[in-house]
Amino acid sequence: MRAAIFRNGDIVVDTMPEPTPGVGQVLVKTLACGICGSDLHAAKHAHRMVEISKRIPGRAVMDLSRDVVFGHEFCCEVIEYGPQTEGKLKPGARVCAMPALLFPDGNKGIGYSNDFVGGYAERMVLAAPLLLEVPNGLPTEHAALTEPLAVGVHAVEKAALGGEEAPLVVGCGPVGLAVIAALRLKGLGPIVAADFSPKRRELAARMGADIVVDPAKESPFSKLPVAKRAAVFECVGVPGMIQQVFEAAPRDARVIVAGVCMESDRIEPLFAILKELSVQFVLAYTPQEFAHALKLLADGAVDAEALVTAKVGLEGVKAAFEELGNPERHTKILVEPWR
Amino acid sequence: MRAAIFRNGDIVVDTMPEPTPGVGQVLVKTLACGICGSDLHAAKHAHRMVEISKRIPGRAVMDLSRDVVFGHEFCCEVIEYGPQTEGKLKPGARVCAMPALLFPDGNKGIGYSNDFVGGYAERMVLAAPLLLEVPNGLPTEHAALTEPLAVGVHAVEKAALGGEEAPLVVGCGPVGLAVIAALRLKGLGPIVAADFSPKRRELAARMGADIVVDPAKESPFSKLPVAKRAAVFECVGVPGMIQQVFEAAPRDARVIVAGVCMESDRIEPLFAILKELSVQFVLAYTPQEFAHALKLLADGAVDAEALVTAKVGLEGVKAAFEELGNPERHTKILVEPWR
Repeated sequence: MRAAIFRNGDIVVDTMPEPTPGVGQVLVKTLACGICGSDLHAAKHAHRMVEISKRIPGRAVMDLSRDVVFGHEFCCEVIEYGPQTEGKLKPGARVCAMPALLFPDGNKGIGYSNDFVGGYAERMVLAAPLLLEVPNGLPTEHAALTEPLAVGVHAVEKAALGGEEAPLVVGCGPVGLAVIAALRLKGLGPIVAADFSPKRRELAARMGADIVVDPAKESPFSKLPVAKRAAVFECVGVPGMIQQVFEAAPRDARVIVAGVCMESDRIEPLFAILKELSVQFVLAYTPQEFAHALKLLADGAVDAEALVTAKVGLEGVKAAFEELGNPERHTKILVEPWR
Repeated sequence: MRAAIFRNGDIVVDTMPEPTPGVGQVLVKTLACGICGSDLHAAKHAHRMVEISKRIPGRAVMDLSRDVVFGHEFCCEVIEYGPQTEGKLKPGARVCAMPALLFPDGNKGIGYSNDFVGGYAERMVLAAPLLLEVPNGLPTEHAALTEPLAVGVHAVEKAALGGEEAPLVVGCGPVGLAVIAALRLKGLGPIVAADFSPKRRELAARMGADIVVDPAKESPFSKLPVAKRAAVFECVGVPGMIQQVFEAAPRDARVIVAGVCMESDRIEPLFAILKELSVQFVLAYTPQEFAHALKLLADGAVDAEALVTAKVGLEGVKAAFEELGNPERHTKILVEPWR
């Protein structure tokens, strides 16, 4: 089969062996797979990512001398089941699944693995127990947004806002937009959102932000109602952002770090100490939140249409990685490996 | 009057003008004043402290070209009241107070100010409404521990542990010891405590730690019961500690940063993200917590005797600053300016 492969620091299209579904697994055809900011980061800073992964016990470490196929935001079609599976969803059924394979000694992630291909391949294997059927009316390209939406749903759940907080979303890339959508769906607000990009601010409003701010012109923190406790969602994930929030946040603010900064970062704790800030770092989602995200998309509760800005075949993945650097042009690019 | 003055980066004993109690203030004689780690830091990194204070809106900034008298952990004796005071406590009464003066435009801290002397002076002014009488049986030198104990009481209150968490106190200096005492008084435990110093570990046990660990020999994190959520109190406050906790903490741990790191620090957010850590930065105490700390000392609930390791006059302050670097010799040194 064909895949867009991360090899020697580059993205190349090549053929590779067909995957075979093992015990409890299912072989699927990848219908669409979103490109995540973490994929861009992994491609650009692969060695740093490996180095840091090595220092985290239990964390899978990519071997960069071997091929890796990225892609963890997918909608697929069932082809055939491996041994010890129930096969509840028939071949041809469209499915989403959390990007993980289940083994007796723990889960293994899909998307940054040498052993299991991600969604930038024509076919892949998934964990059969994790399959969720895509409801009939939901387009494949919207179902592929389940994973990034689940990230936003989880960030908002983990924040456990009581309705007395004033949410501010810093950074309106896919993570920030998902957080805005999740806040709106829970009726939390007014939602202030900030991004330097006009296109991203437009999308933030479309997702449900009440006040959108260009941080080049004014501080989004100045838009927060002073009578409420600030809940700042950091959705940028680059070095320096946490300290920026520490400096700008009001006293007693809650900070939810949803942006995934994979690099070393510098903070001045005294700012956080003097304001008694609390910081909740969040990652991924629970199976329930993942299923809920799919349901929200199926219910039309999220304007999925607005988020998908391009679709490319495997040959287009490399260029898409470069184009995603421009927030005016793209939000989510989907890879359709069957093209 | 005489004072140990921070002048040109040094501690010198000199005379200075008598303070006069203004509106709502009271003139007191300083009976005893503890030397705080923050005082040591301020003396060593004064310019850095000024630089960072300048960047925090509303934060008082010391003018290092002028004299500063440190000291914010005091027990005093009432001398005379300024205008517009009720004078409930008679001259001669022993008092503690939060180290702040109250003004219509906000509070001003005592201890790092050019305008108001701290407790390393023979006399000082306090805010009359903040005076708390020291109960009869409580020795002055124990009453002077009210402020640092309040720091521990506050850290534990702010952590809002529900009894299902397993507390670990990293660093058993005065802050860590106060946290241990406060945890014990709330019946939270088992308390694991870690410090490189044998003397500090001994004190940790005396304050109520159930398990004391030498981190040079084994990880204190390995002593945490796995079935409970870890609540890690970072009580060291030097660069690198937050990242050390990020690396060692178990998944979903709560981190309470009670150590006051005044310098720039380096973290790798990915560790905190992958474990979904939550971090509560804490500072100081409420008036209620301060009063509660005094009551705890008066009730004999805390082994105050163990914490005071020396008493010096003003001439001894400079040497005491140096000696406090050795955790085997000293925990809390009290300054008695009247000597």
